[in-house]
Amino acid sequence: MELEWLSEIELYFSSIKDNDRLKIKGEEAHHILDVMRHRTGDELFVTNGKGFIYKAFIEAVGSDEVICKIIETKQYNNPLVNITFCIPRLKSHDRFEFALEKCVELGITNFIIFESARSVSKGEKLERWQKVLISAMKQSLHAWLPQLTYMKNVRELNNFTGFKIILEQASNTTLNNFLSSSQHPVSSNYYFIFGPEGGLTEKEINSIENHIKVRLIKKRLRSETAIIYTVSLLSNLFDH
Amino acid sequence: MELEWLSEIELYFSSIKDNDRLKIKGEEAHHILDVMRHRTGDELFVTNGKGFIYKAFIEAVGSDEVICKIIETKQYNNPLVNITFCIPRLKSHDRFEFALEKCVELGITNFIIFESARSVSKGEKLERWQKVLISAMKQSLHAWLPQLTYMKNVRELNNFTGFKIILEQASNTTLNNFLSSSQHPVSSNYYFIFGPEGGLTEKEINSIENHIKVRLIKKRLRSETAIIYTVSLLSNLFDH
Repeated sequence: MELEWLSEIELYFSSIKDNDRLKIKGEEAHHILDVMRHRTGDELFVTNGKGFIYKAFIEAVGSDEVICKIIETKQYNNPLVNITFCIPRLKSHDRFEFALEKCVELGITNFIIFESARSVSKGEKLERWQKVLISAMKQSLHAWLPQLTYMKNVRELNNFTGFKIILEQASNTTLNNFLSSSQHPVSSNYYFIFGPEGGLTEKEINSIENHIKVRLIKKRLRSETAIIYTVSLLSNLFDH
Repeated sequence: MELEWLSEIELYFSSIKDNDRLKIKGEEAHHILDVMRHRTGDELFVTNGKGFIYKAFIEAVGSDEVICKIIETKQYNNPLVNITFCIPRLKSHDRFEFALEKCVELGITNFIIFESARSVSKGEKLERWQKVLISAMKQSLHAWLPQLTYMKNVRELNNFTGFKIILEQASNTTLNNFLSSSQHPVSSNYYFIFGPEGGLTEKEINSIENHIKVRLIKKRLRSETAIIYTVSLLSNLFDH
């Protein structure tokens, strides 16, 4: 089953599976029944968000649920599984959500959203962000549901093991230098840490133990541009 | 004069220069005087959009103009000068303008916006797009004003000489293959042609003489994602 990227496949999400049957509930079921007006016998694609995409047909329809029978199964790997993007809340919700969406489309499946000293927006909107992630996963026909963690302070990253890479335009090392170095085993975890408008504070940077600073091109980039640029390069290297 | 990307430099645009004096008019003057509340003696950075950035101070202020005296001049090159991005109008104005903005931030200075068979939006909004381009140029401290041409039909590209590269996910050649090939002299012009939602039609593709088709990663990408992904790779290769 090669997914046809250009065709008008609809991909749905459901984590409820019992042998060769899938149950789709809530908003997803509403979309199938009331928006797309699917009926019994129609064919759908469903991902469990854990690497599988099922080709299935609608076997039964309830008031707010859809039961599908699986007719084909395919497993997909996650080439960027060891990469986590650590993104502060940005001033503009649109730019922030756009960055999230582009990251998912280009293959990032681990996110840490943190509150940064210079972030104008505070607090979390986990439900809203989750919707953006699921929607982008389905849009781009991915089989991996992105995971999102919220942190009140970027120093909580010290609880995680792996390379901590701070994107900082004043650095002498480029992201290219870093990526082409052979000292970075594929099995390690990589945390890419971006600043908000105005950047991370010195205190925040110093609070991240054993960090590495890398820069992108010699341009003043908006936060979301730096994020999308970085995921593009990673995706180009690892995701084929 | 090394521009400090992270500092809060304000860059203005003016094409009116007389020896060592610059005249800034219209919206730019309004921004300087009424929004930023600058006065005589204040220091500004001004680009002429043709490769120069001037450090200057305000010498005189009129009702809707600002006269600056140049105290330092620096010339910048344009590493992506031979590259033109040919972009169809997209269904969403936001996504379209976001793509334009990101392209400018990452160094694209030549645009052709075309009306595509499957474009939902028709007609041009040149004035509006020009504002997006100028704003992104200033935001990212660039010295080159992006040029924009509007085409009713993509086959008008046949009037231009250079490589015509269609981004088409069904292609066997990747953008990487194309970019790493040695058969592409730096002095040639390169036209990167993107499709709208639903892609270019067969007729449109066939109407572009001597085209090359390349694909990006094996993902279904939204139009604006394909655009930003491509400029990221080009920028990473050529813009240092």
